[in-house]
Amino acid sequence: MNKQDTLPKLKDFFDRNIPLPEPALIRLFEAMELVKLPSKHSITQPGEICTIEAYILKGIARTYFINEQGDEVTVHFAKEDWWIGDVASFTLQRPSLLHIETLEETYMLTISYERKEQLYAEYPIFERIFRLMIQRTHAFLMNRLVSVLSESADKRYQYFLDRYPDVPQRVPQHYIASYLGISPEFLSKIRSKKAKLRS
Amino acid sequence: MNKQDTLPKLKDFFDRNIPLPEPALIRLFEAMELVKLPSKHSITQPGEICTIEAYILKGIARTYFINEQGDEVTVHFAKEDWWIGDVASFTLQRPSLLHIETLEETYMLTISYERKEQLYAEYPIFERIFRLMIQRTHAFLMNRLVSVLSESADKRYQYFLDRYPDVPQRVPQHYIASYLGISPEFLSKIRSKKAKLRS
Repeated sequence: MNKQDTLPKLKDFFDRNIPLPEPALIRLFEAMELVKLPSKHSITQPGEICTIEAYILKGIARTYFINEQGDEVTVHFAKEDWWIGDVASFTLQRPSLLHIETLEETYMLTISYERKEQLYAEYPIFERIFRLMIQRTHAFLMNRLVSVLSESADKRYQYFLDRYPDVPQRVPQHYIASYLGISPEFLSKIRSKKAKLRS
Repeated sequence: MNKQDTLPKLKDFFDRNIPLPEPALIRLFEAMELVKLPSKHSITQPGEICTIEAYILKGIARTYFINEQGDEVTVHFAKEDWWIGDVASFTLQRPSLLHIETLEETYMLTISYERKEQLYAEYPIFERIFRLMIQRTHAFLMNRLVSVLSESADKRYQYFLDRYPDVPQRVPQHYIASYLGISPEFLSKIRSKKAKLRS
């Protein structure tokens, strides 16, 4: 993958979500680095400061933490056309609570804290752009919190399928169970119930 | 309470958290309204767009939702020197998932969506100020998500006491249980265990 060829994808993301004037888009793109990571590569870990935010071009990554019982809890999956990074750790430069790791070979455009701060300093329009982006991220997290504490596992699985239709084919089932907050056995019961309803 | 007398409190909040040049502080303050609400007053409800963000001068409010089982889940309590509002609903002007209500007579400085947009348009420094504020809010919510899915109820209660030392004296115990994600009976067991340890 050649960096220059990835610009249309980034442009398309912003066109659909937060329109960005062409010169600002170019400045952002120039501040970003094309990175290729193998599968199961750790992007950040608890106790470390998350050093990048990244736009995923190809591949998939997940954010998770390990709870007091020693179980993994998946916060979210990010795939093509999504951003990844621990926003809290990255923006406040505080140690992360989270693991972020790739689940496939992943190509992404990354930006470092220093480059992002430079963008803010040189081009104030990025204050607005990234304010709008974090508003979206925050709304997403609030939905996630309400969903995990509120809805039945069946409903959460359906919501998951709507949002991530291709993910069940791409990642191990126990990661999906850990996203839904249920055991892998319970997930397989839900799946067979759904399969029966369809047949 | 006289509006002009409340400026030092707002100034003090920003001095401690996100330093704001004096003229910007004054512009923000002028865009805000001093509001007094009785206890148990609804600020927003699911399905409505949250119309304000507010800095609490005196009193306490809580954000909650009702889950599929019909139980209340308290997302957080906001008291003196905290901000309240459904950031996702307010900033994106989308229907809220949440209830927000006062639990005591509450004085607050509120800002409407229109006034805030006007601040952004007239004084670009607010893009930065509110970007920094939402970063804090987002980090707080991520901590909350990790804590509720990760830590034991004892630990969550201790964390709650550290963060909200005076709240147990100010709000009904079942709201605190619904914040911790446990039954009121289980909360009272934790409390008596703690009391025994102290005696």
